[in-house]
Amino acid sequence: MDAARFTRRVPEGEDRERLVCGECGFIAYENPKVVVGSVVSEEGRILLCRRAIEPRKGFWTLPAGYLELGETVEEGARREAWEEACARLSLDSVLAVYSIARIGQVQVIFRASLAEPGFAAGPESQEVALFTWEEIPWDSIAFPSVRWALHAWRRNLPGVETNPSEDSRGMAGL
Amino acid sequence: MDAARFTRRVPEGEDRERLVCGECGFIAYENPKVVVGSVVSEEGRILLCRRAIEPRKGFWTLPAGYLELGETVEEGARREAWEEACARLSLDSVLAVYSIARIGQVQVIFRASLAEPGFAAGPESQEVALFTWEEIPWDSIAFPSVRWALHAWRRNLPGVETNPSEDSRGMAGL
Repeated sequence: MDAARFTRRVPEGEDRERLVCGECGFIAYENPKVVVGSVVSEEGRILLCRRAIEPRKGFWTLPAGYLELGETVEEGARREAWEEACARLSLDSVLAVYSIARIGQVQVIFRASLAEPGFAAGPESQEVALFTWEEIPWDSIAFPSVRWALHAWRRNLPGVETNPSEDSRGMAGL
Repeated sequence: MDAARFTRRVPEGEDRERLVCGECGFIAYENPKVVVGSVVSEEGRILLCRRAIEPRKGFWTLPAGYLELGETVEEGARREAWEEACARLSLDSVLAVYSIARIGQVQVIFRASLAEPGFAAGPESQEVALFTWEEIPWDSIAFPSVRWALHAWRRNLPGVETNPSEDSRGMAGL
């Protein structure tokens, strides 16, 4: 794709700017992306992955990543836990739906447990470990929404949580 | 964009086929899209929109549509209700998260009510109306997930619902 051909303009019949190819009129829609992940608990301890890749290399995160085309959110959440933590999950329920409007992300986070014993660092993780609530390395958490999800898990309310009111658009920096 | 330049192959360092430009190597990631919508109830009656556009023109649906880049799911759900039903919504909670893997969709559906009286057909609707449960035109519902969401609303369970077990991947036809 020759990116230089694309300009930002309002196509006929639309109400907002899109990336339009100046040559053929092709509209490259830019869509929000779906991240799927899980708070995996095992006898009260929570599984976290230490990132081996940027952004936030060396910081701790949930097993999570971009949903692929053709997957359900459940399939995606299980695949990410397998890729990042070599863990087979049993998904319980949807814990949270977060919007990170600043970067065009919607995050669907599940409550989960290990379907079979064992986990290990996948290629995108430096290490994978279980933490009690008190042991969680709060100063080294990769993203605000990881903190949100951990606290949502801890509150253990029946419904699904969304962005906290103090950051309703998910605009916080890292 | 000259679509003819793109071929499907596995880029270096990836594990699945992507659309890759044969000229510059640009990878056009194809991502699932997020649909946001609402079951809007008003004194026990539910607001439905009769589609003025394909697919399923003439059939009844929830106010719903694609999330735009830079929006939260809440903002998107409110915008769609405004565009399709000229209705201002008060969102209650997330009712359901559905995956339609066959067409690469994730649907986030809210429980909502009218924030102010009044509604009307927007440009994409032939008509908009409130229905009691018994009045819902079940034979003229546009999509299976509209039926799923209506039944989820009716069950009124505390958690968020996901795909029904008989269609866990959202593979049903229209």
